[in-house]
Amino acid sequence: MDRTRLRRKPQRGSHDRAVIDKILDEALICHIAFASPHGPVVLPTSFVRVGDELHVHGAIANAMLTRLGEGVDACVAVTLLDALVLAKTALHHSVNYRSVVLFGRGHRIDDPATKRASLAALLDKVVENRSAECRLPNDKELAATQVIALPLAEASAKIRTGPPLEEDGADAALPYWAGLIPLVTTRGLPVPA
Amino acid sequence: MDRTRLRRKPQRGSHDRAVIDKILDEALICHIAFASPHGPVVLPTSFVRVGDELHVHGAIANAMLTRLGEGVDACVAVTLLDALVLAKTALHHSVNYRSVVLFGRGHRIDDPATKRASLAALLDKVVENRSAECRLPNDKELAATQVIALPLAEASAKIRTGPPLEEDGADAALPYWAGLIPLVTTRGLPVPA
Repeated sequence: MDRTRLRRKPQRGSHDRAVIDKILDEALICHIAFASPHGPVVLPTSFVRVGDELHVHGAIANAMLTRLGEGVDACVAVTLLDALVLAKTALHHSVNYRSVVLFGRGHRIDDPATKRASLAALLDKVVENRSAECRLPNDKELAATQVIALPLAEASAKIRTGPPLEEDGADAALPYWAGLIPLVTTRGLPVPA
Repeated sequence: MDRTRLRRKPQRGSHDRAVIDKILDEALICHIAFASPHGPVVLPTSFVRVGDELHVHGAIANAMLTRLGEGVDACVAVTLLDALVLAKTALHHSVNYRSVVLFGRGHRIDDPATKRASLAALLDKVVENRSAECRLPNDKELAATQVIALPLAEASAKIRTGPPLEEDGADAALPYWAGLIPLVTTRGLPVPA
């Protein structure tokens, strides 16, 4: 579809689901945009990919989830930042990243078993096997939780890797440092409550 | 204004500019939402705060920046993830985060000196003093670059810190581990080009 066509630097883009899924399965948060009476809104939230869908969840009172569950047009971006790219010229400074953008309309998941599976998948994404190591939602808690699914049908990935662009002519001889500064996100030592 | 009112968990919110600025000055990327002919769009981009504005930049051909420069309604989210919050019950799992959401309309910066200052500020945000350690844009490069400013007037911050919510009743006695897993983003060893 036209809106998933990669306009800027299409050579960095991909519609390959394996590429898309790898980014979605590594990232912990997404940013969801939707129309509201006062213009577009974008909010961060945690998410999990379940098969061909991206799932987000929250309280019944959550206004964004309620809107998404009504099937409004939405756009979701998931971004991993991998490195700062420093070049000899200001113009060629960049960042290495892996990102996914998807367009689609959500729907609310009402089936209790599917809701439970989605919440367990989110727990297990965050910490391996966590769904077996906490008390899962009871019926009342499940009823107070919304789970919204967004289809991955209109998703695309965009990735920049590698060193800065090589400079041309006189710029190549400039004495400035050029290269990558990797950005690494790690988990620190657990802090018991 | 109504759209910056914090609806969910307002006790986590702040309209304090010092709080907002600290988050904006630490984060490397923002997610910008705007309306398009095919519905809302959200895309990631690097940014820098300059005084009371958030600045983003890119090529003249960049469609998002062109739209923003025309003054369409926009919403920007900046999110820092600080920790995974593990509770004894699935329901009380959460994340610690610091985020800013702002609403506003952008304008294109045309004055060459202001554009140059903005690009230098972005370089220096990413690496201290970098604007003195690379070749700055010449007139042709500057003309091929758009810089868009978005006002911080309608910005708010939202922050979660601290341990998981304490569990009630029988849940408090559950044998599961609860606490924080810190998420730390660090810069790795520079890799020369």
